[in-house]
Amino acid sequence: MALVVQKYGGSSLESAERIKRVAERIVDTRKAGNDVVVVCSAMGDTTDELSDLAQQVCPVPPQRELDMLLTAGERMSNALVAMAIHALGAQARSFSGSQAGVITDSTHGKARIIDVTPGRVRQALDEGYIVLVAGFQGVSQDTKDVTTLGRGGSDTTAVALAAALDADVCEIYTDVDGVFTADPRIVPDAKKLDAITYEEMLEMAGAGAKVLMLRCVEYARRYGVPIHVRSSYSKKPGTTVAGSMEAIPVEQAMITGVAHDRSEAKITVINVPDHPGEAAQVFRAVADAEIDIDMVVQNVSHLSTGRTDITFTLPRSDGPRAVAVLEKQRQKIGFEQVVYDEHVGKVSLIGAGMRSHPGVTATFCEALADAGVNIEIISTSEIRISVICRDTQLDDAVRALHEAFDLGGEEQAVVYAGTGR
Amino acid sequence: MALVVQKYGGSSLESAERIKRVAERIVDTRKAGNDVVVVCSAMGDTTDELSDLAQQVCPVPPQRELDMLLTAGERMSNALVAMAIHALGAQARSFSGSQAGVITDSTHGKARIIDVTPGRVRQALDEGYIVLVAGFQGVSQDTKDVTTLGRGGSDTTAVALAAALDADVCEIYTDVDGVFTADPRIVPDAKKLDAITYEEMLEMAGAGAKVLMLRCVEYARRYGVPIHVRSSYSKKPGTTVAGSMEAIPVEQAMITGVAHDRSEAKITVINVPDHPGEAAQVFRAVADAEIDIDMVVQNVSHLSTGRTDITFTLPRSDGPRAVAVLEKQRQKIGFEQVVYDEHVGKVSLIGAGMRSHPGVTATFCEALADAGVNIEIISTSEIRISVICRDTQLDDAVRALHEAFDLGGEEQAVVYAGTGR
Repeated sequence: MALVVQKYGGSSLESAERIKRVAERIVDTRKAGNDVVVVCSAMGDTTDELSDLAQQVCPVPPQRELDMLLTAGERMSNALVAMAIHALGAQARSFSGSQAGVITDSTHGKARIIDVTPGRVRQALDEGYIVLVAGFQGVSQDTKDVTTLGRGGSDTTAVALAAALDADVCEIYTDVDGVFTADPRIVPDAKKLDAITYEEMLEMAGAGAKVLMLRCVEYARRYGVPIHVRSSYSKKPGTTVAGSMEAIPVEQAMITGVAHDRSEAKITVINVPDHPGEAAQVFRAVADAEIDIDMVVQNVSHLSTGRTDITFTLPRSDGPRAVAVLEKQRQKIGFEQVVYDEHVGKVSLIGAGMRSHPGVTATFCEALADAGVNIEIISTSEIRISVICRDTQLDDAVRALHEAFDLGGEEQAVVYAGTGR
Repeated sequence: MALVVQKYGGSSLESAERIKRVAERIVDTRKAGNDVVVVCSAMGDTTDELSDLAQQVCPVPPQRELDMLLTAGERMSNALVAMAIHALGAQARSFSGSQAGVITDSTHGKARIIDVTPGRVRQALDEGYIVLVAGFQGVSQDTKDVTTLGRGGSDTTAVALAAALDADVCEIYTDVDGVFTADPRIVPDAKKLDAITYEEMLEMAGAGAKVLMLRCVEYARRYGVPIHVRSSYSKKPGTTVAGSMEAIPVEQAMITGVAHDRSEAKITVINVPDHPGEAAQVFRAVADAEIDIDMVVQNVSHLSTGRTDITFTLPRSDGPRAVAVLEKQRQKIGFEQVVYDEHVGKVSLIGAGMRSHPGVTATFCEALADAGVNIEIISTSEIRISVICRDTQLDDAVRALHEAFDLGGEEQAVVYAGTGR
């Protein structure tokens, strides 16, 4: 008997009808002879609606209370799925994150899981129940308060439970068929990948692929939990995320896919004194405001002035705050100007095969040049090349790279509406 | 510094606007120098909406899961009120029933509180916080599952917390100004009572007055918690429920008010063999189906046949089930027929003063006769007279009794729409 952990996103649960269909799939998995643990996101737009309500009563709601509010969403969907399973004649019990032993630190709004003690889950499984666990939530080890795990939190809950229960697989049900070589909404012949390593998936997620969140993949990699990303709306196999790229023979390594990201902005700090430590002051100011930066370029110093320009990218949502923080330090750091640019996009090529194919960077740059896309910043890792370009050219860039590396399949990809959490 | 427990009903919390007004009242109470613990019901119709959703996925949802679902409502309203308090510059923390130490038995759907261990509530008060506790919910001592307390559960939560914290008063905020001598929607000059004893309030609640639920009053009486029933929409004092009628000098005791109840039905079991134990079989059959009966009459036996008729009242919602249960036992018990009648109403007169005024029953019956109301069943306690009449005559009966005992005030009572849980 295998132990399967399944996670269903909010769009798969947005109505009573959809909840019933999810229940059928869960009961089928049980009937096939598996122990089943299910993690549910909140129904449809529940989380957004609750956030709106919070805004109406308090412009900046305290995070502890926001967590108490938002976690109600997953408790509700969880209990409803348990009832729908009951209606099909099977037995289910739902647990809150706290009851399921999801122990976190006290960082409300984006708590990290520090332990999972699923004693009650295990016992219910042993008694023959299908177990439902509310996703996205835990309980703080120190304060015993309810916490939330932040974006993609339900995926992380599922992977963490799979690790703690030593599950055979963690199935993430979503509104796409799996992980694709590119976003099928941009590249119609994008191909579904059957398998991808943790490292490649990490780079894809970090480069903007939304199908899995970075933290969930990191967690799965650390504990060796195989993830199966698949569609809630079909029975077709999806994409298996497992294994290390170190284990793949070099000659079999390939280019995996193209990812893109529209959520970044670019800041250029002009005429920074080019002395040791000046650049550090720029980054320290931004870091102290708890803003994560992504790509960084420092231009060669202008020899005549002894000054240089520093450019970096960051989440667009943090942009205005970063500009304000830097403006405050202008005198102290001694730069001339901060230029803020929201009209950028990032496109990345990912693949373990890059290591063994020296021509990849050249092909990459030629493909973009042929498509008329100007590269503003370029950065690389062992298995990834990313560039910043104009946002208006981003779709062209994705298509050009996808074609240049011959990633397309033979059939059209199926695109569903909506997206889960 | 006094410790005040406040409870707000669902209609007082049905929108962001109303939540803000409730928060203002709470902060005012705090600023007046009190420690404040607040129990909130779910917003507006949340509980009904969640029950509907449950019905859609499962015709008879398991009670454990229904409790998990419904308790989300109070967690949400609670957290939102905490945020609204924060927006006013005060500090608040919300707790679930479980976090607040509301320990119950395992009877999902109508659990009884068996202990309250409010350690975290006390600590938060000591740290200067206003404390919010989700009403209507607790945690089972045996299974550690989430339970609900049934109808009026949030009132009971408030009273139980007030008892455990040794609070100075438990304020129940509702959509009426207090406890009235009769329902102001039927009797326009009904008078708000300034004070009422626990015994009288118990009889009023048991006789159908909806302002406080029976269990909550029982709890308050047992632990001597003074209740102040008042309106969420005005600053006027309401009705204090406190003290024993034993402590009131006989000459000061009065007639308290008239209560009515439209929720009962009447069953008559015809030609039951009049041997010892036959009537008991009728009541045992109904009790085994967990149906509570209210008033009972057994007619004098027909000497010629040795048979008798048994009549009783019960909640209308249990009526069809009771009939089915009795029909099944017809052969065994040996009666002739079950007659079911939904078109009945109950009117009751309550007051400690009844004990010392022997003419009350006579005046009561005369008043109903003068109003053309026929009495079908009559039952009395030390401080209450109740009768069953036709439902179409119920309003007339209430008005006739209110006038005969001179209970009216000088001003029109104010009636608000809606009702809390």
